[in-house]
Amino acid sequence: MAVLVVDGEIVAKVKKSTPREGGPGDVINTIVRAVEKVDPDATAVALGIGVPGPVVPGTGVLPAAPNLPGWDHDVDIGRLLSERIGALPVVVGNDVNVGTLAEHRYGAGVGVDNLLGVFAGTGVGAGLILDGRLRQGPRGMAGEIGHTFVAFRDLHLEGPGRGELEDYAGRNSLERRARHFVAKGESTVIFDIAGGGRIKSRVWKEAIDAGDAMARRLVDDAASALAAAMASTIALVDVELIVLGGGLTERLGEDFRRRVEDELLERAFADTSAPVRSARLGDTGGALGAALLVEDLA
Amino acid sequence: MAVLVVDGEIVAKVKKSTPREGGPGDVINTIVRAVEKVDPDATAVALGIGVPGPVVPGTGVLPAAPNLPGWDHDVDIGRLLSERIGALPVVVGNDVNVGTLAEHRYGAGVGVDNLLGVFAGTGVGAGLILDGRLRQGPRGMAGEIGHTFVAFRDLHLEGPGRGELEDYAGRNSLERRARHFVAKGESTVIFDIAGGGRIKSRVWKEAIDAGDAMARRLVDDAASALAAAMASTIALVDVELIVLGGGLTERLGEDFRRRVEDELLERAFADTSAPVRSARLGDTGGALGAALLVEDLA
Repeated sequence: MAVLVVDGEIVAKVKKSTPREGGPGDVINTIVRAVEKVDPDATAVALGIGVPGPVVPGTGVLPAAPNLPGWDHDVDIGRLLSERIGALPVVVGNDVNVGTLAEHRYGAGVGVDNLLGVFAGTGVGAGLILDGRLRQGPRGMAGEIGHTFVAFRDLHLEGPGRGELEDYAGRNSLERRARHFVAKGESTVIFDIAGGGRIKSRVWKEAIDAGDAMARRLVDDAASALAAAMASTIALVDVELIVLGGGLTERLGEDFRRRVEDELLERAFADTSAPVRSARLGDTGGALGAALLVEDLA
Repeated sequence: MAVLVVDGEIVAKVKKSTPREGGPGDVINTIVRAVEKVDPDATAVALGIGVPGPVVPGTGVLPAAPNLPGWDHDVDIGRLLSERIGALPVVVGNDVNVGTLAEHRYGAGVGVDNLLGVFAGTGVGAGLILDGRLRQGPRGMAGEIGHTFVAFRDLHLEGPGRGELEDYAGRNSLERRARHFVAKGESTVIFDIAGGGRIKSRVWKEAIDAGDAMARRLVDDAASALAAAMASTIALVDVELIVLGGGLTERLGEDFRRRVEDELLERAFADTSAPVRSARLGDTGGALGAALLVEDLA
């Protein structure tokens, strides 16, 4: 998604899919085409971009990123993009971090200066707003909530994952867990609904609606693991609001949000829970947040 | 512990035990006596104090604190103390937070602007230094790492605890776990070594040295749970150093520190581990940190 932002307002948007094959050059070509299409008169004075991984602070370098094709080494995406779009300044941030920044300024988190944005889709990522500012950290790693440990005894257990949140709450690992339990002899309609393809978010919703016990259990585990990680974050850094977004949670809807919020309340230390609000900006959030990153640096 | 600090140097110190009976008035009397003894000429221009619990931000109010006698309601310890010591300004902070601040300025964390201090004694607490500043949070709760969830499935399990770090790594819960397993028929020398009293830190060390399997297992669990919570903190907020202190870890010594550090390395996301250094200031850290809190506000 590319957006053109003028005075804090989105005046144009263009959606393009990230290439699934090729390498960094193909990804950059796609971005350049999106930029040219959303801003044909080249009016923008700077470009902000959100990328799926921790960015080396103070640079536009995205190290090896497993979710991007051929991205197996450091790539200075900031410099490469700047060269392609008339030497404009380019600011690069983590996609979930900047999505949280957008929710803070224009979405579900307006007016709350200490919040956690959690986005569950293929994987699970987060952004932290502390005292009104996006926390990026000295290594650009802040917000990697998917890699927090919610089940510390699983590190060496046989079975999928090491006990990290993302082992329970991401779409990839939900599918991996389902395959694991099927291999152990359990039955489910999940794979029938998916019709042989990947298990998309809607499949989980449909399987639950059909009363499938495994889908119910795995999605309940996802909610519990998310609530545990959120309760931990509240206790550790003291945030007052959780913004919950991402393709999986959007599809699972209000039932899932309430399930997470109820368990968060049960887990909260000393009556210091936080409401869980659904993210409001959908898939424009990341692009808008990247633009905000430019503003914040200006 | 009370210290008199002049130009960042400790020029006098006095140690007094916190009363185990009575109420807030008795605790305050003890503090006043310590202040009068450490600063008999009343030269101090302000008083900083660290208390075992989250402090209401911008106030000197310590809500119900289970570790203090009769402290079952909000007490404005800042105001009460100020009235007793000639109306000096009093700044109140969480004891573990200010201990971490002291390690950052004068101890194991000098020169590192993003660090986590973890202190394991009776319970487990922490402090966060982010971009060189102590994180306290809008509700004064930051650093409550003992209440982060490391075993999310334990919430409703039969057995001690709800799956929080403090259920594994604090001295109170180590003892509770040992009693639980003894009640289930396991054997151990822990209670023999303790001779009928509470299980102090030295008991765990002696039981391990004597080859006691339960002591080894429970202390290993403590190390694993600590390493998991530390890895989670690195991923979530991006800190570059862990400072490990507290009575229990001091007594368990270098073996324990190395055990935690090794497992942290194994758990770290994408090669972004952090060294684990032993705290250097011992039991003067809290008092020194409280004095630093005064300086920071000045």
